[in-house]
Amino acid sequence: MEIVITAVGPDNIGLADPIIHYVTGQGANIAEIQMYDHDEAAVFAMLLRIHLQVDSIDPLRGTVEQLGRAKGLSVRVWSPEPTGRTARLAICTTYRPEPALSLLRAIRDRQVPAEAVVMLGNRDRCRGLAEQFNVPWHSVGNPLGIPDEEEIVRVLDEYRVDYVILARYMRVLPATTCWKFAGGRIINLHHGLLPSFPGIRPYHEAYASRMLTYGATCHFIVPELDAGNQIIYQSTFTVPPGMKLEDITRLGQEDNEPHCLVEGVRRVVQREVLLHFHRVVATPPS
Amino acid sequence: MEIVITAVGPDNIGLADPIIHYVTGQGANIAEIQMYDHDEAAVFAMLLRIHLQVDSIDPLRGTVEQLGRAKGLSVRVWSPEPTGRTARLAICTTYRPEPALSLLRAIRDRQVPAEAVVMLGNRDRCRGLAEQFNVPWHSVGNPLGIPDEEEIVRVLDEYRVDYVILARYMRVLPATTCWKFAGGRIINLHHGLLPSFPGIRPYHEAYASRMLTYGATCHFIVPELDAGNQIIYQSTFTVPPGMKLEDITRLGQEDNEPHCLVEGVRRVVQREVLLHFHRVVATPPS
Amino acid sequence: MEIVITAVGPDNIGLADPIIHYVTGQGANIAEIQMYDHDEAAVFAMLLRIHLQVDSIDPLRGTVEQLGRAKGLSVRVWSPEPTGRTARLAICTTYRPEPALSLLRAIRDRQVPAEAVVMLGNRDRCRGLAEQFNVPWHSVGNPLGIPDEEEIVRVLDEYRVDYVILARYMRVLPATTCWKFAGGRIINLHHGLLPSFPGIRPYHEAYASRMLTYGATCHFIVPELDAGNQIIYQSTFTVPPGMKLEDITRLGQEDNEPHCLVEGVRRVVQREVLLHFHRVVATPPS
Amino acid sequence: MEIVITAVGPDNIGLADPIIHYVTGQGANIAEIQMYDHDEAAVFAMLLRIHLQVDSIDPLRGTVEQLGRAKGLSVRVWSPEPTGRTARLAICTTYRPEPALSLLRAIRDRQVPAEAVVMLGNRDRCRGLAEQFNVPWHSVGNPLGIPDEEEIVRVLDEYRVDYVILARYMRVLPATTCWKFAGGRIINLHHGLLPSFPGIRPYHEAYASRMLTYGATCHFIVPELDAGNQIIYQSTFTVPPGMKLEDITRLGQEDNEPHCLVEGVRRVVQREVLLHFHRVVATPPS
Repeated sequence: MEIVITAVGPDNIGLADPIIHYVTGQGANIAEIQMYDHDEAAVFAMLLRIHLQVDSIDPLRGTVEQLGRAKGLSVRVWSPEPTGRTARLAICTTYRPEPALSLLRAIRDRQVPAEAVVMLGNRDRCRGLAEQFNVPWHSVGNPLGIPDEEEIVRVLDEYRVDYVILARYMRVLPATTCWKFAGGRIINLHHGLLPSFPGIRPYHEAYASRMLTYGATCHFIVPELDAGNQIIYQSTFTVPPGMKLEDITRLGQEDNEPHCLVEGVRRVVQREVLLHFHRVVATPPS
Repeated sequence: MEIVITAVGPDNIGLADPIIHYVTGQGANIAEIQMYDHDEAAVFAMLLRIHLQVDSIDPLRGTVEQLGRAKGLSVRVWSPEPTGRTARLAICTTYRPEPALSLLRAIRDRQVPAEAVVMLGNRDRCRGLAEQFNVPWHSVGNPLGIPDEEEIVRVLDEYRVDYVILARYMRVLPATTCWKFAGGRIINLHHGLLPSFPGIRPYHEAYASRMLTYGATCHFIVPELDAGNQIIYQSTFTVPPGMKLEDITRLGQEDNEPHCLVEGVRRVVQREVLLHFHRVVATPPS
Repeated sequence: MEIVITAVGPDNIGLADPIIHYVTGQGANIAEIQMYDHDEAAVFAMLLRIHLQVDSIDPLRGTVEQLGRAKGLSVRVWSPEPTGRTARLAICTTYRPEPALSLLRAIRDRQVPAEAVVMLGNRDRCRGLAEQFNVPWHSVGNPLGIPDEEEIVRVLDEYRVDYVILARYMRVLPATTCWKFAGGRIINLHHGLLPSFPGIRPYHEAYASRMLTYGATCHFIVPELDAGNQIIYQSTFTVPPGMKLEDITRLGQEDNEPHCLVEGVRRVVQREVLLHFHRVVATPPS
Repeated sequence: MEIVITAVGPDNIGLADPIIHYVTGQGANIAEIQMYDHDEAAVFAMLLRIHLQVDSIDPLRGTVEQLGRAKGLSVRVWSPEPTGRTARLAICTTYRPEPALSLLRAIRDRQVPAEAVVMLGNRDRCRGLAEQFNVPWHSVGNPLGIPDEEEIVRVLDEYRVDYVILARYMRVLPATTCWKFAGGRIINLHHGLLPSFPGIRPYHEAYASRMLTYGATCHFIVPELDAGNQIIYQSTFTVPPGMKLEDITRLGQEDNEPHCLVEGVRRVVQREVLLHFHRVVATPPS
């Protein structure tokens, strides 16, 4: 069974040793290790992907969590492998409802075999959507929209979320949160074509470049500042010269972005694509 | 009648004066002037777009060409306005035949109301195509493929070409040639999405960025080194993760690029778009 | 005598004709014309650089201004040529006083042969500096620091300013103001190396790139959105690995930036460099 | 003692396990692990930085090399810690002799406490330099200048090189070679300012941008395609407008580049800077 272990700690000393010791002692084969030490930012983290001959990850999880507690590490043990259950999604939102709505419909109509187990918002704009689809809602922002990052992690843990879907969630997740759910569990919808238009106003920037093609990108978030290009799906549309920016933006927001997110999430939960050493690869035929 | 006059001269002194004097004396309204003086590169040029109440540009052309001869200027007088005739195209090629073939078919099938009056190649690969469609062919390259730039201009003048179509012509036109046919008469097919992938290997670069969207761009060439983004049409296609570069490239070359060129040329010859002060604009309703 | 005429008008029709007619009728040789028509932004402008055999530009100015009034154009006539007087500078400021202070000292100590005839600020931070050096001060910002763009132009005209010095003035001049003083009369200090770090936080961006070289750039503002690289002077400093961003920024602000501005302004007012068709060139030996 | 172990293997399976098992069993603390699996490029590698209480790395090296042989891994064990000996440098060259010459002089004059134990060239241009300074020379290029990558590694191993200095060596080291000497052992001189001008013609590119500042960058090579910005030292010079490209290039090549390389190498061999998780940091005071 493929198992992903993440650990985030207060410093670099002793971050890796106890967990690696333990799992290799259990006969695990190490498939991937990523370590991260950003002294200035005080972020120390590790991702460990292993293969272990077990039927359940629960015993391993128990022991590794115990190790974590003893060493002051925040530890998570997760397996991407299908186990008869559908993937559990958290959908994070800010203002725009269209991508979340499309995803909720696609789940309801069984086009995306997953379950929306919780919705979060740093703004309350999409709360009605959660009620409409009977999904538990958590407001995680203060009146200025600044999110409580610890509360977000707590909610994701509480609902035993497999994948975190950023459906036009307009905040940057802190590096520690990214590491806690590393290994291809955070999926973002960016409303521009990556890597060309990475900023917060990609429609404006493409328009200023006088492009006639606009697009959206569904990609994994990987927890390094400079990483990128973990693209799961991109969709585009073309416009005639002279179309106004607001019309272009509306086309993108109402049609292209929702489509892009739904197809991207579908590829992940149906395990058509994998994140492998920072690269998205097609799942090899077994 | 809208008239475009271009002049290219040996130096900056006296480049503008005689022509501007003459046409304003004839009662012309000046709509646009672009001057260019690149001392280091010894390129001195002017574009003059005027409106003049005449039924024919022939008398004006005669006088301006006389002025040009007297001053050592290379002068061209052209009108984009429909005059009952179809647009006369020169199709420039190097190796890849697909875009030129698609354009020739679209002309034959009257999807693009134009006439291919001449084909040029710095390589001979597309000569058979010209023969197949009964279009006069001119080889303009030496055995190394280096084109004879003066011969190209001579051919374009001889065939009284309205638009120069660079159908995967893999050479950069010199600035003087661009100026001689300035004003929206040179149309290029670039095999990548502009402005993101401007180089000579856009498929490779997009692939190295791990993009899942590939595209082509049909755009006007404007005669400054740094200009860009005069986009007439862009078309894209999306691929699944893991598709090999050679398969992506083949999809682009055989299907997406030809479509992009045909639609771009159609927009220009049907006067749906105009080049106006370095920007492509939709033709205003008259 | 070299004369620069700028005209900004309400639309494109008739912008160029009357002035060009008049000056060519006076026997002027046209050295450079730049026209600009940005329909979407409603900016229509022209720069005309001519040579005319006159001892004074005053008669020409009178007539051209009359033409402007008749046609609704905002017209300016200026000559860069030395006429026995020192260059008249306007120094525009926001918060940081160091570059303006250094320039005022260099003028006082006659290292820069110019006169600071007026200082402006969209914030009042540098008002004391103006008082200290007995330079008239104009506050041009509202309480939010938003400048009154028409008042700025009015002040620049009132003081018959030759050059506008943006000494860490943190606002973007509107295109119309840039056109009114086109031809190499607006000099900006950018606190980063251009073209690599064009944004508003160049120290942060270079630091994020983990560079060990930081710099400042003194350049002409040219009135097109995409223009750039009209660099008059650049100065740099290097730092050891591990130096903190605030220490780097302080080094740059207190030492490198002021030096960069003073040397840049000196080059312009001593006519060592010229703006020629959007390029900065060394003044040819006469 | 800090010890760096690198392993490069034929595939990902079993790359990490035996070595990690062994060293953690010996009581090593793991300070850093980097793993790399580029399936398409068939590059599989690991960097392991550990702390171990030993007086000599020789016993560890012996065992780990034995493990490597058994598993088909190419293994290297190295310690950056001072042990009374001077650092052993390999200087790699192509055409330009100036940087290598400056470094050899600085070593001779004891400004850089190191020993040039071998020089390599994919071209023979710098062979005379090696003879002049009595450094063994190895030609590693074929008549076209294409280097024998295996021979390079063999020579570096044979001479027990601590640091590989790329002194205007104009070839890209393959990823496998970079991994074999990972951990801050490969130092490159780039003849432009990074990250702005990364290409092979940085003088041309900066000149085309009309910059007045030119620079060189001494940096660690890290073995990922997208990594960068591991800058050890940068030095710059400024030029007046109008200076010709060939004069700028000569200034850079003859003066600025050699200075940049010498100071960069000095910082490394005197352990003023370290490579720590892909970032260059100042050595913390012990």
